[in-house]
Amino acid sequence: MDLSREIAAKVEQSFANQAMMTTFGARLTRLAHGMVEIEAPILEQCTQQHGFGHAALTFGLGDSAAGYAALSVMPPEAEVLTSEMKIHLLSPAHGDLLRATGKVVKPGRRLVIVQAEVHAISGDLTTQIALMTGTMVPVFPK
Amino acid sequence: MDLSREIAAKVEQSFANQAMMTTFGARLTRLAHGMVEIEAPILEQCTQQHGFGHAALTFGLGDSAAGYAALSVMPPEAEVLTSEMKIHLLSPAHGDLLRATGKVVKPGRRLVIVQAEVHAISGDLTTQIALMTGTMVPVFPK
Amino acid sequence: MDLSREIAAKVEQSFANQAMMTTFGARLTRLAHGMVEIEAPILEQCTQQHGFGHAALTFGLGDSAAGYAALSVMPPEAEVLTSEMKIHLLSPAHGDLLRATGKVVKPGRRLVIVQAEVHAISGDLTTQIALMTGTMVPVFPK
Amino acid sequence: MDLSREIAAKVEQSFANQAMMTTFGARLTRLAHGMVEIEAPILEQCTQQHGFGHAALTFGLGDSAAGYAALSVMPPEAEVLTSEMKIHLLSPAHGDLLRATGKVVKPGRRLVIVQAEVHAISGDLTTQIALMTGTMVPVFPK
Repeated sequence: MDLSREIAAKVEQSFANQAMMTTFGARLTRLAHGMVEIEAPILEQCTQQHGFGHAALTFGLGDSAAGYAALSVMPPEAEVLTSEMKIHLLSPAHGDLLRATGKVVKPGRRLVIVQAEVHAISGDLTTQIALMTGTMVPVFPK
Repeated sequence: MDLSREIAAKVEQSFANQAMMTTFGARLTRLAHGMVEIEAPILEQCTQQHGFGHAALTFGLGDSAAGYAALSVMPPEAEVLTSEMKIHLLSPAHGDLLRATGKVVKPGRRLVIVQAEVHAISGDLTTQIALMTGTMVPVFPK
Repeated sequence: MDLSREIAAKVEQSFANQAMMTTFGARLTRLAHGMVEIEAPILEQCTQQHGFGHAALTFGLGDSAAGYAALSVMPPEAEVLTSEMKIHLLSPAHGDLLRATGKVVKPGRRLVIVQAEVHAISGDLTTQIALMTGTMVPVFPK
Repeated sequence: MDLSREIAAKVEQSFANQAMMTTFGARLTRLAHGMVEIEAPILEQCTQQHGFGHAALTFGLGDSAAGYAALSVMPPEAEVLTSEMKIHLLSPAHGDLLRATGKVVKPGRRLVIVQAEVHAISGDLTTQIALMTGTMVPVFPK
């Protein structure tokens, strides 16, 4: 399902305001009702001690994709905050590109349960490097 | 308990090799057997859309503190990898400084169960902003 | 801090209404503001394939202790539901008795973040067998 | 993929030895390479204070389904233990039957990452009541 222009604009504006995403070199690449995709290269400044992408990079991309997926199903005036998130790191983050895909598992006005997968893409090869599940909390203006 | 000079040097070297920690402006501030502390300011480049520290920053500091806590109880030739980590975000990350404290809950040759807390420090005020529990996997050279 | 008689009675009544706790042979052994303890033997009917207490027993005791700890800090008309819970199983559940201790990490009207530890007690020996962190959701009558 | 007769027999024997599964009235209903299904009614003795299935029941079914899914991809001499498991409880457990489906996300000799879903079935209606992700640890005879 396509998003309303209003909600799409809200997600894009919020994403643009996250300096961390700029530091990661991340781009919002897909935006649908309940599903958001973010891609980023593995910049040298975001690596760990063996030259792979740092867990903070993988986590940050997946958390943002999941958060915006939650935001995409909320009324336009809502914001969302991550309450908790679990990440399984399945493989080292190396390749040309990381792609995080966030999805809504269960929407709600009080809690939105979300899931994200992060894949590393190297040429033709796509490897899942992380599986995440978490809880987003909608916040409404008072 | 103090760490052997060999293990302390290994942790410091590994930390210095994490470009992500440099991007975060993070410093290793305490290093003991089973307990490691990392501090970082909240740099503008690591903020989210409301100007608070990004969850990826909080996660990255806590994950590294927990990982090095695990490394501090392993034999000198071992490395550790994060297998999974859950983070509860308790309060927004704002203040002069974030301090992540990682501890070993249960050591082991196959798995090390770890915990981390992250606090935000503003002048005299210290607020816990995150609670993390996770699983580190020791890796031995073949 | 002691609980009001009203809240203590509410927790005791709710506990008594959980048939699963009766099946576990569980008893509410301590009840304070933000802290609840539940004890249970390891009944034969609650064991796994090696004769140890089943993970479902350990989980159920810890989840209930954490849930009642959350309930103890809520207004008298509230109920709480578990939204999510992570358990680390640290050692096999064997011994004379399991003791689950639930605590509130962060209270709130929308979410209560909780922690629980489960210990196995055998004579003089106490071993931590589980560490849990989770999210409780308060529910208010409409 | 079908399981070898040897592994199928091992899983069935282990399941039969879990007294907790008998107490739950649970049955192993599907057994394939990397995928196991367990079903159980909601017995009165396994309910919580509002008459729904207890979280310990839901957890226990999902954890066992995930554990046997892990066992199904291991060599015949291996056992597996749950190291950690996170459960999101999505809806109350009520209905004629609970069905837990466990799957292997990533196999390994040291760790097996698993996922489980639990559904409640009432006549024609199937509702997902839980989503679980966790870590199983293979144990080999010495």
